[in-house]
Amino acid sequence: MNDLQPEALIAAYRAVRAHTEALAAPLSAEDAGAQSMPDASPAKWHLAHTTWFFETFVLERFEPGFAPHAPAFRVLFNSYYNAVGDKHPRPQRGLLTRPSLDEVRAYRAAVDGRMAALMPRLPHDALQLVELGLHHEQQHQELLLTDVLHLFSCNPLKPAYRAADRRLSAPASPLQWVPVDEAVVQIGHGGPGFAFDNETPRHAVFLQRYEIASRLVTNAEYAGFIEAGGYREPALWLSDGWDWVRAQSREHPLYWQRVSNDGWQAFGLAGLQDLQAHEPVLHLSYYEADAYARWAGARLPTEGEWEHAAATCSELRQLTSHAWQWTSSAYLPYPGFSASAGAVGEYNGKFMVNQMVLRGGSLATPPTHLRNSYRNFFPAHACWQFSGMRLAR
Amino acid sequence: MNDLQPEALIAAYRAVRAHTEALAAPLSAEDAGAQSMPDASPAKWHLAHTTWFFETFVLERFEPGFAPHAPAFRVLFNSYYNAVGDKHPRPQRGLLTRPSLDEVRAYRAAVDGRMAALMPRLPHDALQLVELGLHHEQQHQELLLTDVLHLFSCNPLKPAYRAADRRLSAPASPLQWVPVDEAVVQIGHGGPGFAFDNETPRHAVFLQRYEIASRLVTNAEYAGFIEAGGYREPALWLSDGWDWVRAQSREHPLYWQRVSNDGWQAFGLAGLQDLQAHEPVLHLSYYEADAYARWAGARLPTEGEWEHAAATCSELRQLTSHAWQWTSSAYLPYPGFSASAGAVGEYNGKFMVNQMVLRGGSLATPPTHLRNSYRNFFPAHACWQFSGMRLAR
Amino acid sequence: MNDLQPEALIAAYRAVRAHTEALAAPLSAEDAGAQSMPDASPAKWHLAHTTWFFETFVLERFEPGFAPHAPAFRVLFNSYYNAVGDKHPRPQRGLLTRPSLDEVRAYRAAVDGRMAALMPRLPHDALQLVELGLHHEQQHQELLLTDVLHLFSCNPLKPAYRAADRRLSAPASPLQWVPVDEAVVQIGHGGPGFAFDNETPRHAVFLQRYEIASRLVTNAEYAGFIEAGGYREPALWLSDGWDWVRAQSREHPLYWQRVSNDGWQAFGLAGLQDLQAHEPVLHLSYYEADAYARWAGARLPTEGEWEHAAATCSELRQLTSHAWQWTSSAYLPYPGFSASAGAVGEYNGKFMVNQMVLRGGSLATPPTHLRNSYRNFFPAHACWQFSGMRLAR
Amino acid sequence: MNDLQPEALIAAYRAVRAHTEALAAPLSAEDAGAQSMPDASPAKWHLAHTTWFFETFVLERFEPGFAPHAPAFRVLFNSYYNAVGDKHPRPQRGLLTRPSLDEVRAYRAAVDGRMAALMPRLPHDALQLVELGLHHEQQHQELLLTDVLHLFSCNPLKPAYRAADRRLSAPASPLQWVPVDEAVVQIGHGGPGFAFDNETPRHAVFLQRYEIASRLVTNAEYAGFIEAGGYREPALWLSDGWDWVRAQSREHPLYWQRVSNDGWQAFGLAGLQDLQAHEPVLHLSYYEADAYARWAGARLPTEGEWEHAAATCSELRQLTSHAWQWTSSAYLPYPGFSASAGAVGEYNGKFMVNQMVLRGGSLATPPTHLRNSYRNFFPAHACWQFSGMRLAR
Repeated sequence: MNDLQPEALIAAYRAVRAHTEALAAPLSAEDAGAQSMPDASPAKWHLAHTTWFFETFVLERFEPGFAPHAPAFRVLFNSYYNAVGDKHPRPQRGLLTRPSLDEVRAYRAAVDGRMAALMPRLPHDALQLVELGLHHEQQHQELLLTDVLHLFSCNPLKPAYRAADRRLSAPASPLQWVPVDEAVVQIGHGGPGFAFDNETPRHAVFLQRYEIASRLVTNAEYAGFIEAGGYREPALWLSDGWDWVRAQSREHPLYWQRVSNDGWQAFGLAGLQDLQAHEPVLHLSYYEADAYARWAGARLPTEGEWEHAAATCSELRQLTSHAWQWTSSAYLPYPGFSASAGAVGEYNGKFMVNQMVLRGGSLATPPTHLRNSYRNFFPAHACWQFSGMRLAR
Repeated sequence: MNDLQPEALIAAYRAVRAHTEALAAPLSAEDAGAQSMPDASPAKWHLAHTTWFFETFVLERFEPGFAPHAPAFRVLFNSYYNAVGDKHPRPQRGLLTRPSLDEVRAYRAAVDGRMAALMPRLPHDALQLVELGLHHEQQHQELLLTDVLHLFSCNPLKPAYRAADRRLSAPASPLQWVPVDEAVVQIGHGGPGFAFDNETPRHAVFLQRYEIASRLVTNAEYAGFIEAGGYREPALWLSDGWDWVRAQSREHPLYWQRVSNDGWQAFGLAGLQDLQAHEPVLHLSYYEADAYARWAGARLPTEGEWEHAAATCSELRQLTSHAWQWTSSAYLPYPGFSASAGAVGEYNGKFMVNQMVLRGGSLATPPTHLRNSYRNFFPAHACWQFSGMRLAR
Repeated sequence: MNDLQPEALIAAYRAVRAHTEALAAPLSAEDAGAQSMPDASPAKWHLAHTTWFFETFVLERFEPGFAPHAPAFRVLFNSYYNAVGDKHPRPQRGLLTRPSLDEVRAYRAAVDGRMAALMPRLPHDALQLVELGLHHEQQHQELLLTDVLHLFSCNPLKPAYRAADRRLSAPASPLQWVPVDEAVVQIGHGGPGFAFDNETPRHAVFLQRYEIASRLVTNAEYAGFIEAGGYREPALWLSDGWDWVRAQSREHPLYWQRVSNDGWQAFGLAGLQDLQAHEPVLHLSYYEADAYARWAGARLPTEGEWEHAAATCSELRQLTSHAWQWTSSAYLPYPGFSASAGAVGEYNGKFMVNQMVLRGGSLATPPTHLRNSYRNFFPAHACWQFSGMRLAR
Repeated sequence: MNDLQPEALIAAYRAVRAHTEALAAPLSAEDAGAQSMPDASPAKWHLAHTTWFFETFVLERFEPGFAPHAPAFRVLFNSYYNAVGDKHPRPQRGLLTRPSLDEVRAYRAAVDGRMAALMPRLPHDALQLVELGLHHEQQHQELLLTDVLHLFSCNPLKPAYRAADRRLSAPASPLQWVPVDEAVVQIGHGGPGFAFDNETPRHAVFLQRYEIASRLVTNAEYAGFIEAGGYREPALWLSDGWDWVRAQSREHPLYWQRVSNDGWQAFGLAGLQDLQAHEPVLHLSYYEADAYARWAGARLPTEGEWEHAAATCSELRQLTSHAWQWTSSAYLPYPGFSASAGAVGEYNGKFMVNQMVLRGGSLATPPTHLRNSYRNFFPAHACWQFSGMRLAR
């Protein structure tokens, strides 16, 4: 993190901020204001919160004569930083019909103007916060899409966020098991570029010999699990997973719906579409991924196995292009982990319990946001993300 | 209901429909789309549902060659009519970002056009349904305001729906107790004009001698109850009411907030304002009204007492101008009550349990919607309506 | 209440107290300690609470040199008297494994001894409290049975509380509609004997002409409602009732289970038994009684209609012998009602909201506890009492 | 597990079974029947379920002409084995007043008699199941005590399960930090004796250099955390932990109560006692242990660190004598883990998500049940076990 080029960072700032607005462009003010569940946030809130981040952690500390754009926004758009002060209750983000989407866009423009003026003069540690803010915003770019998808899925009109993607009709490559030898290996971020604090320090882990799948599990393969009665056989499931299946009456992944005895449709950013058999399965909970793996006579890789293989096995495909991949690792601090100082130290560390790690990246992840050492994390029941699976054994 | 003048009804149709749109005019699309609690509905939903009512109960039955404006709206904007078919889940009305507010306005315009073409040719029983639809829409006009008020109350910015009303500075008139003699009296709707089915049949009830207050309880009087510890003394409360006070940590009416040791502010359609001591107290639950009455050595009137007094005692003031008035009567069918035939029979009758009757009318009730025989009803804990109280003894 | 004979009261005290113990005799200490739901209480708690009533309201006020049997019992066995002080949380009554059943019996014996010594010397107002305590205990005798029945119903072993009753094999008499003329009549308790405060004052009500059924609705008649699809037709139900049916997946009364396409069994105090077609149906909620009446083209009587008919129509049968009968009246204060002074004033008045009145009496009601003016009350969803129905129209 | 001596096992059977009954001996039938929360079970249920284990997994499979002691018990006393069939709902275990405690004791005696007759003739794999059943019963011995403690804690009478222990008045030894060098080490069970499947296979892990505390954190040290405002400072807590603190209004460990400004009492098996400053702190949740460690500038050890230190560092004290010790490791399968075949494979593996590992043993753990490789596990919020903490850094 010590080779920041101010010019490159300023260009990245412009690009990232513009991309967020491009993602929100297809949404009406109504679309951007609604919140479909407490775990999700309105698009307008994502637009504002990412701006609040720069205002709070950069402008407030480094801009001479700082005055807030709107004092109330300090509370309204604080997500979870206790050190910053009060927060608007998360489940009520959808009730903030004021400020309007236009006012939030004006907020973005104003902060962008002030950032543009300030960035050329920022000290190095402030530039690090700018860089953190950009990666933070990229995370919210993906969340904006998954949250909009969930919102639209609740609407019987099943609106499409965008036109259908062209789909590859080529069959999936045959699954190959890539062997990896036993070794003490290094994982975690150790390089010069950006990483979140939770990816550090780079450290040794001992890995036993294992094999990892060359590609992700497909829709067709997962449909086979369903047809084989996978959702009705408790022996395949973790106890919490089985409770989840029954409490939610789950019979298939979120967003799937059976259209006849023969087929499935799935709801996605392009609306309701026929399920593409050869595409990687999406929107699995950890419970579903774990049950499928057990049924398939395999298991999920640990995050150490995943990262080591990703770094060393050139045969692996679909690493970051389609779906985040559930690992069998709980989200815990690395040996020697120390959270960043100050309020930004709340970014990652305080969530290190009751969650599982996902690795890779998805169709919705900005390419410049991807890293082999990246640790994504969600609770085991979460399935509104673009989450799939790669097998190991 | 047998003296309907088609021309008058057509004029009323135009006026009522235009008034709804005028009420929604100050709202942005975002304001109109949000739902602050399951009991409330978005303004956009009110705009659409009242239109659905005419489309479903008039156009669908009487328009030659009827085709729905949009088939999906039949489900989306059905409130609770089981005989009509499926309903979108009530708590998810705020997630319907599509159709947009503009599309709902277009829906209104389209139905209005078709109704304008059809109304001159409608048979008498269809005109009765039109009249019912107008009274239905007037109910939603009031709900639109109470629901917007609740939504805005959830926003820390405390937006105002409209500019502050001029307030009368005159002190409230002294409370007078108006005596009414024991008698068998008639209550319920018996006249030629419109009434809901729940106001009928007109029937005899025996009333013992009673006294009823000439005006409503004021904010200053209710503040006295608070200062005397009313919210901390279980002996003043019904058992369910005391449970409600403790579960909700209630210490004052909804929308009040203490600004200092000396004073209160209250949130209303004009935003946060100093409490007007002489104005009638608003936003009471039945539990609060009942507890206040007990503290004051009085009681709430029955709905029979209220209606008889309203019809015969010229001294009574503030009958319909400020607040709906909780009565001590549960909402039950009148002797000989029979619900209207068909799906509109679900309008009132099926709610006749677990609710209390309010009488009068409020600052938000359209004047042409008022009647002495009108029976409003809400659960005992409801307080987001413009609900106050008049004492009896 | 002003003709109390001390000797008769002392004899009644002995008889009522002994009857409670006889009712508990078939129960093991384990049976007597368990609580199957928050609405129910353990038999041990009933044994103790009825004793607490005499200790708190009689001994503590009238016994010279009073000292409590055990200070902790003041809190443990207070049901809901805020004026007496703290209460053990109702849902945790089943966790009071100490004091033991033997200790509670010793508590009863000790209080009985002190009462026996004190009663001959008590002033008249104290004797009234003794009488109240006996009627209070008789209420708990019925609750003890309904609560044990519910507890046993939760046990897959389906234990019987007692041996099967002999059943009458005679068919039910044909239902006759007994006409009653329109009149202003008097209802409520006005006589010299005991009544609860909620039965007073006696007062006039106006009744329109009505007809009332000569007997209760039978199991066979109710089974006809089930077979006709009554639990699947929303038009028959109040809105809250339909929500209750769906939320609880109700398809028949509590304690019924279908044994084949042809028949039903019902769980009762004698265990699981074949349903007796001609016996009155039991364990209905208000929602079920109301829905059945609508299906049958009839309605439930008001409590005024019930009481007036019970007092004047000799043809009525099964008034108090089988099941409490839901009325269409909400439980509200009579005109001029005033709760008793002191803590015993909490007995009835504070529950006058959100409940419906039942009239009559059941197979589990002590005969000396029955009165035409008696007002029993439960929430509309309650069905673990011996609650049935009599039609009116 | 391949050196089982039948004679030794038969002797162990007698001893373990007798010890369970000795633990239950101080309990009345009422004490033994109550269930204070869904996570806990009645003592009677523990007595029956441990017997069910032998009946189901040994007698049913190996006893010639097997017939169940009581067919209903197969369902009533199945805890969570889906492969065995239906289960009585866990939250309703306290409603099983039948079978009685005496009948459960007779069930134990009957199964013990049949086991005594059968054991000398059992094949080796059956003996392994017997051994598993004994370790299973030892787990329930500890749970019986923690569940009784929780039940008694809910009783305002605060009954004592047993007389007070003699307490050592000696101050705790000074905390020493024991250093351990970086290494690839082996953890997990590899020896010839018994272990649960979740302790296997023994495998290599890489440990960085660390230091581990020579003794457990004391009550006095934990009280210091409280006095320093530990429960009011969100920066010390995991996000889920802080939510737990606020939702539960936690200000101190479960079972502590402040008796004055100067001191604390704690409820334990000997009733309410003054807190012993030098004893290890008990009844911590993972959230509390983690927050304390952060406040103390340390952390919790991983389970690998704990096991390796326990096996190699002779300075460590209080390893198994006082409290289970929360580790920072999530409960996950070891590399190469494979659940046992058949229904007993549900014993451990299906719980491997959303729980944290505790190591060591407590004052309530049978000494023959202790192993360095033992993996205890509970959700992060659990605190009714004898759970404390040992620091690392």
